[in-house]
Amino acid sequence: MSDFEEHPLYRIMHPRSIAFWGASSNSMSMGSIQLANLLSMGFEGAVYPIHPKEPEILGLKAYSKIGDVPETVDLAIFVLPTKVVPGVLEECGQAGVKRAIIVSAGFSEKEGPEGKEMQDQLVRTAKKYGITFIGPNCIGAVNPSLNLNTTFFPYEATPGFIGMASESGSFITQMFVHLAKFGIGFSQGFSLGNEAMIDLADCLEYLAQCPTTKVIALYVEGIRRGRHFVEVARRVSRIKPIVAFYVGGSEAGRRAGQSHTGAMAGPDRLYDGIFRQCGIVRARSIEELFDFCYVLGSQPLPRGNKIGILTHSGGPGAAAADSAERAGLKLAKLTPETQEALAKLVPGTASVKNPVDLTFTRNHGDYMEILPKVLLKDEQVDLLFIYCLMPQHRVMTVVLGSGMASISASEFAENYIRDQSVAAASAAADSGKPVAGGSFCDRSELFVKELQDHGLPVLPSPERAVTALGALYRYANWRKIFS
Amino acid sequence: MSDFEEHPLYRIMHPRSIAFWGASSNSMSMGSIQLANLLSMGFEGAVYPIHPKEPEILGLKAYSKIGDVPETVDLAIFVLPTKVVPGVLEECGQAGVKRAIIVSAGFSEKEGPEGKEMQDQLVRTAKKYGITFIGPNCIGAVNPSLNLNTTFFPYEATPGFIGMASESGSFITQMFVHLAKFGIGFSQGFSLGNEAMIDLADCLEYLAQCPTTKVIALYVEGIRRGRHFVEVARRVSRIKPIVAFYVGGSEAGRRAGQSHTGAMAGPDRLYDGIFRQCGIVRARSIEELFDFCYVLGSQPLPRGNKIGILTHSGGPGAAAADSAERAGLKLAKLTPETQEALAKLVPGTASVKNPVDLTFTRNHGDYMEILPKVLLKDEQVDLLFIYCLMPQHRVMTVVLGSGMASISASEFAENYIRDQSVAAASAAADSGKPVAGGSFCDRSELFVKELQDHGLPVLPSPERAVTALGALYRYANWRKIFS
Repeated sequence: MSDFEEHPLYRIMHPRSIAFWGASSNSMSMGSIQLANLLSMGFEGAVYPIHPKEPEILGLKAYSKIGDVPETVDLAIFVLPTKVVPGVLEECGQAGVKRAIIVSAGFSEKEGPEGKEMQDQLVRTAKKYGITFIGPNCIGAVNPSLNLNTTFFPYEATPGFIGMASESGSFITQMFVHLAKFGIGFSQGFSLGNEAMIDLADCLEYLAQCPTTKVIALYVEGIRRGRHFVEVARRVSRIKPIVAFYVGGSEAGRRAGQSHTGAMAGPDRLYDGIFRQCGIVRARSIEELFDFCYVLGSQPLPRGNKIGILTHSGGPGAAAADSAERAGLKLAKLTPETQEALAKLVPGTASVKNPVDLTFTRNHGDYMEILPKVLLKDEQVDLLFIYCLMPQHRVMTVVLGSGMASISASEFAENYIRDQSVAAASAAADSGKPVAGGSFCDRSELFVKELQDHGLPVLPSPERAVTALGALYRYANWRKIFS
Repeated sequence: MSDFEEHPLYRIMHPRSIAFWGASSNSMSMGSIQLANLLSMGFEGAVYPIHPKEPEILGLKAYSKIGDVPETVDLAIFVLPTKVVPGVLEECGQAGVKRAIIVSAGFSEKEGPEGKEMQDQLVRTAKKYGITFIGPNCIGAVNPSLNLNTTFFPYEATPGFIGMASESGSFITQMFVHLAKFGIGFSQGFSLGNEAMIDLADCLEYLAQCPTTKVIALYVEGIRRGRHFVEVARRVSRIKPIVAFYVGGSEAGRRAGQSHTGAMAGPDRLYDGIFRQCGIVRARSIEELFDFCYVLGSQPLPRGNKIGILTHSGGPGAAAADSAERAGLKLAKLTPETQEALAKLVPGTASVKNPVDLTFTRNHGDYMEILPKVLLKDEQVDLLFIYCLMPQHRVMTVVLGSGMASISASEFAENYIRDQSVAAASAAADSGKPVAGGSFCDRSELFVKELQDHGLPVLPSPERAVTALGALYRYANWRKIFS
């Protein structure tokens, strides 16, 4: 067994069998929706619904108690009223179950001592029986490559490279649709709730070892074991990038977080300091968290901070240049050889200085394949931003203009866009340098989909793409100093 | 004639006839694409292609020179090689044409004195004949309600309420698809290029009078007539909100802008000061520019800065609260009456303090209609943010769970989502208070489309929606002080 497989979280994320509490013939209850969702994703392990009265739930044989289930299950999931949770956990312990996800809320996040006390009782029971549990007050976990999704949202993205530990269930489940916008997804995702046993630091250790996780995303309302977190994060960020979005730095965010998961927040400056000493890249919004993860998880580290900008639109080029400087990057000074090579390829109105602005493009092929290659060959260029725009209607105009019949033109245009996108993505990958694209078009445009699906991250604006490249540089710089 | 109709830009944006230079039998040239685009949008005025040799272009009778055209056209559009532009402008002047859009580049934005000199010549010619022109080095203009689109991009959005003046053509044309993401659009859009005659301040004056323009967007690489701009902007922003995205504040942005349109930039602090004294709201990216315009152009002004946050997801609620404080808003302290009213409507795990967090929602109807009404009635609440999430699959689960046959369930679910969205949008509108929604879902989800189409702005994340509400408050505050 590898270290990864020996980690306590491994079997929670790779269960061979699950016992499920809280589903019933009331198909509108949260538990029923979660179980239906687990089944519909095609999880292949055994699933045992537990219900005191009902003999069958969602087509599965149900058991009245865990003791009746014919095997010792790998994972117990509770979607139960708060008060019955401690008793059921006790039963699980007696039945030899070693892992649980406690979705039920109403514990330490509630005001007053009662909830906290009940949560302490859960921990005592778990320790007595050697149980590891996630939650309470969480939404569960997702491991898409295993079709494991214990949440109540269908997983709409692909299995991906982002491993996430979140102090909000929504920032797991409601990100499925967000990540799908870019054709990316989670490798593993944890909703941690009140973190009675398993916290952010535990997930960091686990995700550091997870082979499909290329970057770690954290949503933080407050860190519980500060010193331990720092120690783990410093170690992990030497191996994999960690990006964190922290909302507890403002008074309003702190209070909202506290009533949400009972986490202890601290002022912005404190968390800035923690993140900086750990090599954690801080994101300022959920969108930025995933923008950064997208680029940090898919692109190689740059050697320096000098960026090349390729555009055929002056405004997006200027916006990219402005964002680059604000993100700590410098515009690369292209070598005379590069400028000479560019001058042969571009129209007279174009600028062969950085930003390289092609203005009106007659030849998309040059733009997507040849020009990136020329720029990436320049030793002055450490990172490259490409403003991407090859909408189908434009290509069709050109193809139809060449006299092709419209019936074959559409196929021709699609193939052309596909070929050019693959060429651009390959040129980027072959260079060994980080490249990001920006476009106001989304995946409904073929060029965006093809670029993204071939490994070139395309973000929804020049500013967002360049800002993410800046984050990649800051991480690379930290690695250079501390590794 | 109204003041609006007397403005020199009115007839450029409402031409009854157009002469067009630069289209030809080469359908792949930029001019041909632009003319084809103008025609395909269904512009109803007369269009006269001018070409020295070709008798017919894109199915229209072509004229060898402007003097041959049977009427004095309202507008001339040049997509011509730089060197021939001055001569053609002279011919226009002799033929009595009073308005032009000069798309051709290669003037003052080029290094060296030659381009600048040619541009000065254009201005001299224009003044001699009383011509007003936009450009050179621009991409044209768009007035969607008139089906006027002189650019080379199809207008994919709806006629909207955002009037834009831009020192980048791309930030007109490539925004068509961006605005379409929200179901909004331009009222009027100007690409100004080198601003030899018509500049940002002229557009501000015109857009201030334009009845369909509810908010003015500026993309700024540099302001040319500083004192005049300030004088105009201060006047206009007392009537309509102005939002500006400025990229010249960094050294990299300044240089990129200069080679783009030759605009003179200044340090960030200077422009911050200019914007502040004019009541212009500054946006930090193109996305933010349109986020702000969306909310400032569609929502009433708040009386104060106290925001209510309605959510059923703790993370998005905390992120919204954090963003609110960073954007200068305060979390409203709900009155005891409101908290009492809420307590009756929400489950035990919910928080009836602000953020109002419903946790797991059984009743979407309460969430979308009743709860917003309760919160908007509270005199402590000046603005409201609603985290929106009513995906079709969730509603279908509930509807199917109630035993309805799947064939009628889908229609039922759609009607339900539509009704709830309309109810939420109406509750917002009836309150007279500003409301914005945030959702990670896009318009492919019916609830987003319906909310947006009924006037409730929905932005792609809680942070973006709340930040835009913060911008609205800052503008309202400025109006309160200076109007």
